[in-house]
Amino acid sequence: MRNTKLLVSYDGTDFFGWQRQKDVRTVQQVLEEALQKLNGGVHLPCTACSRTDAGVHAIGQVVNFHSNIQIPYDKLVYALNGNLPRDVVVRSAELVADDFDASRSAKKKMYRYVIHNDRIPDVFHRRYCWEYPICKLDEVAMNRAAECLLGKHDFRCFETEWPNRKTSVRTIAHLNIERIKNRLHLEIEADGFLYNMVRSIMGTLVNVGRGYWPVEQVKQILDGGDRTQAGPTAPPQGLFLVHITY
Amino acid sequence: MRNTKLLVSYDGTDFFGWQRQKDVRTVQQVLEEALQKLNGGVHLPCTACSRTDAGVHAIGQVVNFHSNIQIPYDKLVYALNGNLPRDVVVRSAELVADDFDASRSAKKKMYRYVIHNDRIPDVFHRRYCWEYPICKLDEVAMNRAAECLLGKHDFRCFETEWPNRKTSVRTIAHLNIERIKNRLHLEIEADGFLYNMVRSIMGTLVNVGRGYWPVEQVKQILDGGDRTQAGPTAPPQGLFLVHITY
Repeated sequence: MRNTKLLVSYDGTDFFGWQRQKDVRTVQQVLEEALQKLNGGVHLPCTACSRTDAGVHAIGQVVNFHSNIQIPYDKLVYALNGNLPRDVVVRSAELVADDFDASRSAKKKMYRYVIHNDRIPDVFHRRYCWEYPICKLDEVAMNRAAECLLGKHDFRCFETEWPNRKTSVRTIAHLNIERIKNRLHLEIEADGFLYNMVRSIMGTLVNVGRGYWPVEQVKQILDGGDRTQAGPTAPPQGLFLVHITY
Repeated sequence: MRNTKLLVSYDGTDFFGWQRQKDVRTVQQVLEEALQKLNGGVHLPCTACSRTDAGVHAIGQVVNFHSNIQIPYDKLVYALNGNLPRDVVVRSAELVADDFDASRSAKKKMYRYVIHNDRIPDVFHRRYCWEYPICKLDEVAMNRAAECLLGKHDFRCFETEWPNRKTSVRTIAHLNIERIKNRLHLEIEADGFLYNMVRSIMGTLVNVGRGYWPVEQVKQILDGGDRTQAGPTAPPQGLFLVHITY
């Protein structure tokens, strides 16, 4: 048996997220179906680092599986891509230690959230952003409001359906919002994320960026630990899983 | 009656091109349907600068129509976008002289052709490029081969189903191929283009870039005036109508 690590990109638009579910199209399902064809028709279960939600995209999702497939890795990449639909691409495959687990071995994950902040949509980009046409968002205020989120905190105020996990304490190593013309890019890196955490942070910071909340309110929301006090969950199509560090 | 000029973007993937046809979805059809709703249900015929083919995209298509619609132009843009499908966006609307004609008044048109030149596809970009994974294309040779195309020539060797027009003489003012990492961008500007001209120039230059033809062969093809001697017509999804000069 070899343990294989795949780097996978997908356009989440037409998927109900990563995880296999009955009667809906998921990334895990199409990837496992492609692997099954290369595995003599026998199903191969895959583990992903992040079980991304419906509509969320991945640039660098990491997946692993144990198998007896003997195809060299460069050929495996082409064979998989030949069997995958056009909205999933395997970027690379490599041998990893037997105890490597795409989810449990992850040290840090980086996400990006993209807002198209313009009155006119970009027709080529609208599957990949939150369109925010109402007003120009103040990214300086948003960055100032976000400073309090850096470091180790209990982020339960940004978790949908808390509690989902043992602990809602996470450490955000990096958080920055950059304006590139009419787009805002939030980059956020942490040791892990709670359910909908990036999207609810984004929705909260947008309430600051549009002048509805003062900068200080984000700190109060964090301290309060109450999801109902934070902003709305930003829509999924602006969110990208960018990179995972092991 | 006011004569209105629209700047329009569209993702050509799901369209059978610009021009209205029976039983297929075209950009002209959906745009005229959106206009009709703002015109009391009365059909308004539109003229586009370029009747782009099925699958070809537009960043800056120009369209004009004469109407008695009185809505201010900024509001007209939002009203149209509210009635258009997600793959067409009106970027701006403005009043133009009564004799302005989006097609006949055009002085120069600029197109871009994008090749994704990598063994691994880019999942977010594959609707917008020709995927060329076989080998690394030599853009230096391609630019040298393209030099002979600059200026005024009879381009019948690059026209599908020649002759379509009175003359196949056109003037190319600008032609350049630039590599940006694993992508090649051809930019080409001329006073007009023959049917499939950009795509057959692209297919011809790729035959040079992959080392199948010497640089000099493009000049011979141009001089020969025989479509069968030029390269294949590159696929539509890499082609963008970028900008029109009036």
